[in-house]
Amino acid sequence: MRLFCLSFLAAVLATAISPAADQHLGVGAKPLPGAEVILEGEGYDEAVAVANSLVAARGLTYVHAFDDPAIIAGQGTIGFEMLEDVPQLDMLVVPIGGGGLMSGVAIAARDMKPTIELVGVEAELYPSMWSRLRGRPAQIGGDTLAEGIAVKEPGRLTLRILLALLDDLLLVSERELERAVALLLNVEKTVVEGAGAAGLAALLSQPDRFRGRNVGLVLCGGNIDTRLLANVLLRELAREGRLARLRIAIKDRPGQLSGVARVFEAMGSNIIEVYHQRVFNRLPAKGLITEIECETRDRAHLDALVAALRAAGYDTRLLDID
Amino acid sequence: MRLFCLSFLAAVLATAISPAADQHLGVGAKPLPGAEVILEGEGYDEAVAVANSLVAARGLTYVHAFDDPAIIAGQGTIGFEMLEDVPQLDMLVVPIGGGGLMSGVAIAARDMKPTIELVGVEAELYPSMWSRLRGRPAQIGGDTLAEGIAVKEPGRLTLRILLALLDDLLLVSERELERAVALLLNVEKTVVEGAGAAGLAALLSQPDRFRGRNVGLVLCGGNIDTRLLANVLLRELAREGRLARLRIAIKDRPGQLSGVARVFEAMGSNIIEVYHQRVFNRLPAKGLITEIECETRDRAHLDALVAALRAAGYDTRLLDID
Repeated sequence: MRLFCLSFLAAVLATAISPAADQHLGVGAKPLPGAEVILEGEGYDEAVAVANSLVAARGLTYVHAFDDPAIIAGQGTIGFEMLEDVPQLDMLVVPIGGGGLMSGVAIAARDMKPTIELVGVEAELYPSMWSRLRGRPAQIGGDTLAEGIAVKEPGRLTLRILLALLDDLLLVSERELERAVALLLNVEKTVVEGAGAAGLAALLSQPDRFRGRNVGLVLCGGNIDTRLLANVLLRELAREGRLARLRIAIKDRPGQLSGVARVFEAMGSNIIEVYHQRVFNRLPAKGLITEIECETRDRAHLDALVAALRAAGYDTRLLDID
Repeated sequence: MRLFCLSFLAAVLATAISPAADQHLGVGAKPLPGAEVILEGEGYDEAVAVANSLVAARGLTYVHAFDDPAIIAGQGTIGFEMLEDVPQLDMLVVPIGGGGLMSGVAIAARDMKPTIELVGVEAELYPSMWSRLRGRPAQIGGDTLAEGIAVKEPGRLTLRILLALLDDLLLVSERELERAVALLLNVEKTVVEGAGAAGLAALLSQPDRFRGRNVGLVLCGGNIDTRLLANVLLRELAREGRLARLRIAIKDRPGQLSGVARVFEAMGSNIIEVYHQRVFNRLPAKGLITEIECETRDRAHLDALVAALRAAGYDTRLLDID
C-alpha cells in the first residue's frame, strides 16, 4: 500500500462574518484584521446556535461550515490538487463531519478520474452520515477524540451529494483514532487532531481493505489540546508495552522495595514513579501494595520483566489501560 | 522578523558502512536493505568508540559524522537550497554539534550571498565550539534536551572553517530549548527534537538580535523520545499558567475538600488530580495538605484562582516547576 497525504491544517468553524469589518466585540473576542472571532459553545451544535443568534441580532450573513455550494467547491480543490499531484491514486479516504470536505473532494476527484474509489470516515460515536446514507437510526453522541467531525446532523446538500458519489463509509473506534494521532506524530512528525487523523485510523482498522492500493488521505486539522495530545502519546506508549504500571504486593518493612528495584535493574527497566498503598488493599495489615510505573523497550521486554518479578517471589499484576 | 524554516528531519549519526552490504548482526541490530544499524553507546562519544572498534575489527571504512569534506559538502546543499528558495534571507541560524552542518551551510551561503550573516547555536551545557573559537576553556557536559548537538569535541576541519566564516555563536538554555520544541509543535504542527529546535531557541533568547531581519532556521532533527516530548509539552503548559499544582492546607474532616472544589468551580478551573498528604506536612495532626492539579486558561486566570482560594480562607501555595 502506498500512502499520499495532504495536510489541510485549518479547522472549519461556524463563522459569522460581520459587515462592518472594523467592529470588534469586547469580552472573549480576539480581534483579527477585518474579522472578529468569538469563542462560544461547547461543541459544533452550540457554536451554530450562538452564530445564528448573532446573525439575527446584527443582520449578519451566515456562512455555513459545510452545507453551502461555495464551501463545498472550495474544499473540492483539495481533491483536484491531490489527483493533479498523484494521478495514480486509486482511492481517497476523507473524514466526514457535516460532509462538506468529502462532498467537494468527491465531485472534483470523480470528475477527474471516474474510476477513483471514494471512502468517507466517521467516528463510531458520531455515525450521523452513516446512519442517514443507510436510512437507519443510530446512537450518536459521546466524548470523542475526533471532536472536529462530531456532528449530530449532516447537511441536506452534502447528504444528496454523498448518496450519489460515495463508495463506502467506514467507522473508526476511539482507540484507532488515538493510534493514528500517535503514529502521525511519531512517524510523520506531524501534529494532526483526532478528526484529521480519521483517514489513517480507517486504514489501521481494516488493513486488508486497502492492501496493494494507492491511497490518498486528507489530514484535515491540527487543532489538538496540548494536554490531550500528551495523554494520547503516553497511552500509546502503554499500549505498545513501552510504558507500564505494575501492581506488586510486598511486605511493609525495610529492604522489600530494594529487592523489587534490583529485579527492575537486572532487567534493564527504568523506574519512573513508585506509589505505596497501605490502606486500600486486601493484604494483611503488614502487607503493602506498591505500584511502579516503568519504561520497557517493548511488549516482550515488559512480559519478561513481569515474569522475572514473579520468579523472584513477588505477586505482580500488570495494569492495563484499555 | 520573518522566519523561513527548512526541516531536515534526519539525525546525523556516527555510522560504519559495511563492505558486505547484505551482512547483518544478530543481537540489537535492525536490518535495513543494504545496511546494518547497531544501536550502542549512551551518547555521541560512546557511539564513536563502538564504531571505531568495529572499523578495526572488521576492516570497515569509517564515515565521520561531521569532520569530513564530503559530509560537509553534502550538508552545504541545505544552505544552497534555502538561498535559492528565499534569496532575501539576511541571516541563517544553524545548530552546531560537531560543526559539519554549519560549516557546509556557511560555505555555500557565503559564496552565494557574501553579505549573509551566519549564526551558530550550541546548548549552554555543551559550548564546545564556542570555547574553541574563543580559545577559552568552558565547562562542558550535563543532561541536555539537545542531545543531538551534545558533542564534547568539535571537528578540526569544522573549527577551521567556522573560525573563518562564522559571524556569531549563541548559547541557549534548557528552558529556551524546551520552549522552542513546544512552540514548533503547537504552532508549526511539526515535531522537532531539542537539537533541531536550537535555532528557534536562539531567536527566543535574544529577540532584539533578530528583529526586522529575514531569518532562515534549519530544523535539523525530529528524533525525540515520546515520553520526553509529552513531558516537555506539559512543562510548557505549566510555564504558561495553563496547568498548575496548588498546595492547599485544609482540615481533615468532611466538607473541607468540597469547599475547596467549589472555589475551583466558581473560577471555571478544571481539577485534574487531587493528592492528600497527611503525614509529611507541618500542620497539626488534624491538618491535611492537599495538592490539586488543575487547568487554567492562562497566568492571569491562575493568579485569580489562587487569590480566590486565599480570599476563601485557604492557605494556598502555587508550586512552580523551574
